[in-house]
Amino acid sequence: MTPKPNSFGPLSGIRILEIGHYIAAPFCTRILGDLGAEIIKIEPPAGDPARDWGAKQNDRSLWWSVHARNKRSVAIDIKSPEGLEAVQKVIASCDALVENLRPGALARLGLSYEVLETLRPGLVVAHISGYGQNGPERDRAAFGVIGEAIGGLRYLTDHPQGTSDLPPVRVGVSLGDSVAGLYAAIGVLAQLLGRAENKSASCHVVDVALTESVLSLMEDMLPAYGALGQIKKPTGARISTAAPTSAYPTRDGRWLLIAANSDLLFGRLMALIGRDDFASDPELSTNSGRVAQADRLDAAIAEWTRQHDANDAARIVAEADIPSTLIYTAAEIVADPQFQARGMIRKVTDAEQGTVLHPGIVPHLPDCPGAIRFAGQNLGQDTDDVLREFAHMTAQEIGRLRSEKVIT
Amino acid sequence: MTPKPNSFGPLSGIRILEIGHYIAAPFCTRILGDLGAEIIKIEPPAGDPARDWGAKQNDRSLWWSVHARNKRSVAIDIKSPEGLEAVQKVIASCDALVENLRPGALARLGLSYEVLETLRPGLVVAHISGYGQNGPERDRAAFGVIGEAIGGLRYLTDHPQGTSDLPPVRVGVSLGDSVAGLYAAIGVLAQLLGRAENKSASCHVVDVALTESVLSLMEDMLPAYGALGQIKKPTGARISTAAPTSAYPTRDGRWLLIAANSDLLFGRLMALIGRDDFASDPELSTNSGRVAQADRLDAAIAEWTRQHDANDAARIVAEADIPSTLIYTAAEIVADPQFQARGMIRKVTDAEQGTVLHPGIVPHLPDCPGAIRFAGQNLGQDTDDVLREFAHMTAQEIGRLRSEKVIT
Repeated sequence: MTPKPNSFGPLSGIRILEIGHYIAAPFCTRILGDLGAEIIKIEPPAGDPARDWGAKQNDRSLWWSVHARNKRSVAIDIKSPEGLEAVQKVIASCDALVENLRPGALARLGLSYEVLETLRPGLVVAHISGYGQNGPERDRAAFGVIGEAIGGLRYLTDHPQGTSDLPPVRVGVSLGDSVAGLYAAIGVLAQLLGRAENKSASCHVVDVALTESVLSLMEDMLPAYGALGQIKKPTGARISTAAPTSAYPTRDGRWLLIAANSDLLFGRLMALIGRDDFASDPELSTNSGRVAQADRLDAAIAEWTRQHDANDAARIVAEADIPSTLIYTAAEIVADPQFQARGMIRKVTDAEQGTVLHPGIVPHLPDCPGAIRFAGQNLGQDTDDVLREFAHMTAQEIGRLRSEKVIT
Repeated sequence: MTPKPNSFGPLSGIRILEIGHYIAAPFCTRILGDLGAEIIKIEPPAGDPARDWGAKQNDRSLWWSVHARNKRSVAIDIKSPEGLEAVQKVIASCDALVENLRPGALARLGLSYEVLETLRPGLVVAHISGYGQNGPERDRAAFGVIGEAIGGLRYLTDHPQGTSDLPPVRVGVSLGDSVAGLYAAIGVLAQLLGRAENKSASCHVVDVALTESVLSLMEDMLPAYGALGQIKKPTGARISTAAPTSAYPTRDGRWLLIAANSDLLFGRLMALIGRDDFASDPELSTNSGRVAQADRLDAAIAEWTRQHDANDAARIVAEADIPSTLIYTAAEIVADPQFQARGMIRKVTDAEQGTVLHPGIVPHLPDCPGAIRFAGQNLGQDTDDVLREFAHMTAQEIGRLRSEKVIT
């Protein structure tokens, strides 16, 4: 690819085709697009169903503005011979293809590895699926929440057994999908790097499973089970290895996280809440002693936090230099001076929605930070331009596709 | 770097220095090492404190076997002039440096950008910190749990307001740290790719904040707040937009996740649990109608699941082709035929621990999958070899460093 200046991120000059829907593959390409890659998103004529998700303004998804940013939208019936042919021509100009259809669907559409290698030797092909491209469960239906349960995260996102009759909670976002998207981005970039060293005509394949992406984050779960038969267990708002560190209720119904889990911090916190008796209790002078009496300590701390509103409690504890934080909602996030200073709260001009708040670009690359070039596009907004530029189609040919309803 | 065959992953030939501790930077380099990069981990003479974390066998951390796999351990006092000089020589042979010290600490150690650019023009330098390398809060203490709270995840990991007096739970692993590590890996790879196109003598910097890594995953939280003033709220085991989909209690005290949130799946589930009255109720024939009566539906489904042990209930629901899963603990994960078939449950020979169960490599790259070349090393196991090979030190010079306690 022709190198371009890094004014738009280190990946400018790289072109990626997305045949994706919902979250996982689109999140992968959004991150790569943020860092400068050109993303061409192939949608069916009815569009990605995620265009209808989440909170809406003027009956349009606000999330779409973020989720599809920096992506050119091509709406095309890839199941028709003419649509397939057009997409194949676009692929010939791409460095990578990212998809999250059901395993095998890409090949059934007419985009097997053999075809892809002929179109674009050395194409990086990244698949994201629930369980992976092979194995006895590969064809099973998958959602992020199922990946989180099979990968071990859901079990740990709970209070200790017996605390409550309520079920373990979801993590509140489709984390399994997004984390799989991050692993796919790593795979795409690694394969592009490796390909620069090892030019081959074969596809360079990335195969990400939601379940495996989650399992990869589970710290000592597998080794502890394998060696000791220990099942890693949920610990609620605490951790099993140190105390006191938990969430404490404030007078105005919020929670303050305090991590006073060292000898020094413990003493400082006990002085602050007026419990010199605890501070001087020899049984509480070690971490293991404090872990053994975590209930008693947490009750005493909660008695103090309940006397204060959240902002006051947070300020007092922070001034004592004890690691702590309120639990942020959207309101605190948007007002936070650090997020503001770091460009993480961006007012983006959205052609349809006016101004939309977007998160900034992660990772931050100070010398070539990438840009939010444009917000999520209308369906098929770029079909004609992409077909002209990469499928080398004339206006007449494009018109014929439109009259045959291959494109909208 | 000299290209090597891809038998060990697409990143073989790339060398990365880690000055890291705890989770975030070490997790980044573990993922890159899994894909073939050579990782040199610089530890203080006392070692990374994470060597003492998690479940233990023979008084040694089992997690260390996984967390430090594929990394060469150099134990050196980098605060001494001789130690700094030795590390600087090693850096001259590296492609990237990944660190998670406090912001500014790397420069204070003697490794400013000016020094790094002289040692290794174009070095990729990746920082991971709580809040980022600049801004009013950059010096504040950070943990993964604090990053999760400030990034918005903790608030959403809860039952709906008013359901319970219990605090919102942690996600059970240090997700903020691990996700920051993934974003840092993306940044390192993107900068290495960009550098291939744009050779410059300057450092190529990656600046990852835990808080921002978490915020980047928050879906419609920011746009919904900015446009509508809506605060994205926790929904417990459900989701706000469809029903029925939740966690249901089984007779033997476990939970079965069932996602029957389409007209077709709803009908199938109601037939299965013997509630034809619900299946034929016109008020439950649409998703919005079902959402409005989610409590009633969930109670009926729970009445059915409570009559069965978990494995039976799961089997019956799966046979009816309704998306569902048990919530896996370590035991189910290790026994799972799909994880087994995919190589995600690996018995790794650990020189100290015998056989340790490791998670496999994610992302899976079928043509060049990388390898678990060796498990987490003893402290300083590779000091001499690394100093010989990259600092070009003789045995006498190394001996002198040892007698001066610069190395152990």
